[in-house]
Amino acid sequence: MKPIIIKSLIVAVTLTVLSSSLARAEDPLASWNDGSAKQAIVEFVKATTTQGSPQFVAPETRVATFDQDGTLWVEHPIYSQVMYCLERVPALVKAKPALAKTPPFNTVLQLLHGDRAAMEKLTMKDLEKIAAATLTGMPVDEFNAEVKKWIAEAKDARWKRLYTELTYLPMQEVLRYLRANGFKTYIVTGGGQDFVRMYAEQTYGIPPEQVVGTAGGTKYSYDKNGKPFLTKEPKLLLNDNNAGKPEGIYLMIGRRPVAAFGNSTGDKQMLEYTKAGDGARLAMLVLHDDAEREYAYGPAQGLPNTKVGTFTQALYDEAKKNGWTIISMKNDWKKIFAFEP
Amino acid sequence: MKPIIIKSLIVAVTLTVLSSSLARAEDPLASWNDGSAKQAIVEFVKATTTQGSPQFVAPETRVATFDQDGTLWVEHPIYSQVMYCLERVPALVKAKPALAKTPPFNTVLQLLHGDRAAMEKLTMKDLEKIAAATLTGMPVDEFNAEVKKWIAEAKDARWKRLYTELTYLPMQEVLRYLRANGFKTYIVTGGGQDFVRMYAEQTYGIPPEQVVGTAGGTKYSYDKNGKPFLTKEPKLLLNDNNAGKPEGIYLMIGRRPVAAFGNSTGDKQMLEYTKAGDGARLAMLVLHDDAEREYAYGPAQGLPNTKVGTFTQALYDEAKKNGWTIISMKNDWKKIFAFEP
Repeated sequence: MKPIIIKSLIVAVTLTVLSSSLARAEDPLASWNDGSAKQAIVEFVKATTTQGSPQFVAPETRVATFDQDGTLWVEHPIYSQVMYCLERVPALVKAKPALAKTPPFNTVLQLLHGDRAAMEKLTMKDLEKIAAATLTGMPVDEFNAEVKKWIAEAKDARWKRLYTELTYLPMQEVLRYLRANGFKTYIVTGGGQDFVRMYAEQTYGIPPEQVVGTAGGTKYSYDKNGKPFLTKEPKLLLNDNNAGKPEGIYLMIGRRPVAAFGNSTGDKQMLEYTKAGDGARLAMLVLHDDAEREYAYGPAQGLPNTKVGTFTQALYDEAKKNGWTIISMKNDWKKIFAFEP
Repeated sequence: MKPIIIKSLIVAVTLTVLSSSLARAEDPLASWNDGSAKQAIVEFVKATTTQGSPQFVAPETRVATFDQDGTLWVEHPIYSQVMYCLERVPALVKAKPALAKTPPFNTVLQLLHGDRAAMEKLTMKDLEKIAAATLTGMPVDEFNAEVKKWIAEAKDARWKRLYTELTYLPMQEVLRYLRANGFKTYIVTGGGQDFVRMYAEQTYGIPPEQVVGTAGGTKYSYDKNGKPFLTKEPKLLLNDNNAGKPEGIYLMIGRRPVAAFGNSTGDKQMLEYTKAGDGARLAMLVLHDDAEREYAYGPAQGLPNTKVGTFTQALYDEAKKNGWTIISMKNDWKKIFAFEP
């Protein structure tokens, strides 16, 4: 090839690369395939933020709420916070050696030593006992420091990556896109409010005051030098699941969301409450139908059943009936994780 | 006088007026007299917001909390929300006529018909009964509409003005001054969270999600058309007084304030908790020592005792010991209300 042709080729290739990366930079939802889900988001944002639009929403009332587990990050095979609780047990046992022989803590030790069958032995009551022992009874500063340390180190067994790397890139794009359009983004999670607050700002750009979750009481007291501190009490104030989600939103935000995102029956009432408001509303449910790139579970649409993040056919039917949009991980998401090549 | 002298005089007077009004426009705390209180606020803001200052506070952690009753607006002779509850009783009686002869509702009717001595008959238990009957048991939308209507019409007996006109101008200036310097301002009130949220945005520029108050539970259910709604339940979730203030701040904000403002023993723990953080902290207490322009009560510093907004000598002594600043309404405030001439 003559140099001039090579040069032209280089210029052409460069221009192509440049223009395609420019196009990508311009698309705030670049990890989404074109389709009804992506379209629903873009149309909702245009309708609610264009001055003069009949569906215009005043900036101060632009509230969008997001479930976390299964909506913003991976929740299978088990919620990350449950892993935290289990992995805190050795420290509990170290502090109180008698626990090594006390159920359910002995079962957790077996599980952590590789006996996977031990997981089956743990009942809901056992898990509640473990949660109470690992999430309450200590000063809030101590708990918060432990969570920060764990979240900076603990890794998921399948991807061998930090849990905070297992957030869904398409949903991160939605968070940023909504914020860029004047929406205040909230997490409304069945998970522990204090737990999620420890990483939500860094992971999702969502500050602690915009994290609503299952919350327990605290108790104000003084140390021996008269310095006040708060202790986490085993007293449930808000069970932020199912009907608890709209109740928690009313308590903590005091405004009805105009957009809400979930993925399971626990989000049903939040989406109903969101849609019951006047004007444009966006309600979306992530369907985990991608066994290859992530997990597949429902049991909606014949997907395998699960106890973690259940998406029933009844929920699917309610969504179709009420104009909620289903997000198919398999079809709507070009890329699931930021670390994918 | 020769025209030229008159002209010069007019120019001179105009310039003086202009420059003094410019000076006033430049002082964000124009209703404050010069003194240690005003100085404490200005120095705190400079120290925490000047880049490179050793006490610089990152913008996202600039949280300032304000008690409402007695700190932002008048609380004597009785909290405005108590007036709301009492004035709702006739509507209750209209709906359930039997209440007209049932204590404590019959006593309230006497009181509203001008029998001031009837107030003395009401016990704390009576007031709780009246609060439960007027603040719970109805859909939140219905309650919110009633509060909005009342706050737009009801007037204080002494000034014959809307309650929302009885906010303290110097404190409104502090709210604006802090926000102009990147602080997020919160109300943390012993009053009802839902009640205060109905007017806080218009009255103080504080949105509902930044109002923390005494809060009850709600219950999610459906009307006959399947439309969901929330009902106010007679179940206390947070008593946002005394130790409940730091507990409420942790629950609803999740960050320790760097500045806190109060006026009574109910604010003591909030100020302690604020001051217990590292770095620059501002803790201030309004002392009602101006019987002429507002009210005088303590019993700190020999002021008359009161059950409404008690400021004990012990609180005064703790403030002096811990470097909290006392705001004397009489000496520190040039003007108390915006409507003053």
